[in-house]
Order: sequence, then C-alpha cells, then structure tokens
Amino acid sequence: MLDDCVFCQIAARSRPGSIVMEDDRVLAFLDSRPLFPGHCLLIPKSHIETLSDLPAGDIESFFHAAQLLARTVEEGLGAEGSFVAINNRVSQSVPHLHVDVVPRRKKDGLRGFFWPRGKYADEKDMEAVRATLAAQYDRLSRAAASGGRGKHLP
Amino acid sequence: MLDDCVFCQIAARSRPGSIVMEDDRVLAFLDSRPLFPGHCLLIPKSHIETLSDLPAGDIESFFHAAQLLARTVEEGLGAEGSFVAINNRVSQSVPHLHVDVVPRRKKDGLRGFFWPRGKYADEKDMEAVRATLAAQYDRLSRAAASGGRGKHLP
Repeated sequence: MLDDCVFCQIAARSRPGSIVMEDDRVLAFLDSRPLFPGHCLLIPKSHIETLSDLPAGDIESFFHAAQLLARTVEEGLGAEGSFVAINNRVSQSVPHLHVDVVPRRKKDGLRGFFWPRGKYADEKDMEAVRATLAAQYDRLSRAAASGGRGKHLP
Repeated sequence: MLDDCVFCQIAARSRPGSIVMEDDRVLAFLDSRPLFPGHCLLIPKSHIETLSDLPAGDIESFFHAAQLLARTVEEGLGAEGSFVAINNRVSQSVPHLHVDVVPRRKKDGLRGFFWPRGKYADEKDMEAVRATLAAQYDRLSRAAASGGRGKHLP
C-alpha cells in the first residue's frame, strides 16, 4: 500500500468508499463523479500502477471480477450494455490500476466518444505498423514465457 | 464460427486482416479505422458476443494477451500509455467480443473523451445505487461459484 494513494486508502478503509464488492484481492466501489450512475471502479488491493504491472497470477481473479461487475451494472440497473475500460498512464486519474465499468444505454449520449476515427495513409503504412507491433508482441511474449514481467503462469 | 460475422471471417482467414498476434485461442489485428495508428482489436477465435459470455476458462489467456498487447502498442510505438476498452452491446460495432487496445500520448486529443462526468443527487441516492449493485454482484458471484454462467473454474 502507498500511503498517499487514494485507492490504497479506500482499500485500507482509511478513506470512505461506496463499496460494491470485495474479496481478498480486489475491491470495487462507485466512482463519485460517474459517467452514469452505477459507474464502478475495480482495483487490485495491492498498489499496482498499470495493466502491464498486474502479475500474471492475478489476471484471472481480476478479470473474473470485471466480468461479473459488467453483468452486475447491466442486470442490476437494467442497462442495455456496458463499457469496460482501462486507461494506462495517459488519462489515468489515479496511478493505481482501475477498470472503469459503466452501464450503457442506447442514445445515452456517449455514442460519439469513440470518434473521430482516422485512417492509414495507405496499405504500406498500415503494414509497417502491423509488422512493428507483431515483432514487439513476439518479443514480449517470449520474454513473458521465459519468466519476464507479465509471465503467463501455467 | 458464425458465417456472417466479420471477425469470425478474419479469424478463419476468409477475410483479410492485418494480424498482429495469434495463438490457439485469440487473435489481434489492426483496426482499419483507428483512433490512432496501432489501434488493435483483440478477439477470441470462438464466436463469443460480450465479455459476460467469455467462459471462465478463457479469461486468463484472453486478458494475458490483452496485457501483452497494451505493452506492445506502448513499447512498439513509443507511446506514453494505452487505452484498453470493451464495449458490450451498446456502441459495440461488431457483436463478437473485442478489446480495443489503443496507444495514447499526452495531448493526443482524446483527453476529454471520458467527460462530462455527472454526480449523484445526494448521498442517499448514491447509497441506493451501491446497495443495488452490491446485492446483484453477490447474487451473480454465488451463481458463478455454483456453476452458472461465468463460473470461475478452479
């Protein structure tokens, strides 16, 4: 726990939080400034900064909770869908990993938030980006398999 | 596989895709109309519609790939951060589960996309929403533990 992290403080109960669920590893609470009522933030109790920093052994429990929480806001609030998002570093309000889980309804006013979309200059440009990413993923994947950060435990 | 699903078609190679990574269960490819160049879509190869429908046994492998893909767009493209998001039903362009993984940079123009934020009328209002969600999560969690949809396999 980091003393000056507001999410660590909520997890430690030294700061009030409107808590929706909790188990031994994760906690979810209402965002006090929601996109829509019922907007939850799911965090690991440990101070982990970004998705990349989440230990491989915590991935399943963390995203199992995210999955249930998405169903919770949908079914609990009669919403038609949900938005599940993680901002890593840029636009990340608190540097403690959190998943925003937001109930969505058609015509709720967020329709345009995923725009404008751009495009690649041409196919060669797109292929260059693809090749860069494919090579990088391959490097990271091999490093993870051999025990680096983000190792995928069997 | 669903014959008329464009993501199933990409997974089956019957439609071209700019593929970044693939393993036995998941596939990631470039979005051809990206928020920013390098914007990837990660999908399960099986036709699964939303996050809620992802079998418990697939959660770890799917989000392990999402984690590596976030690092890939950050490190491969020298981005300062990333945005990782799932739209379930509302704003979901293709009804086949996909994680948008987008490289982010400060002042890239998306700063305001997570706004405007609202607020609860008062504490009683917020508590009512919290209690509704806490009860729903508890119900779903118990159902999952006893073998319902989204069961958390040991």
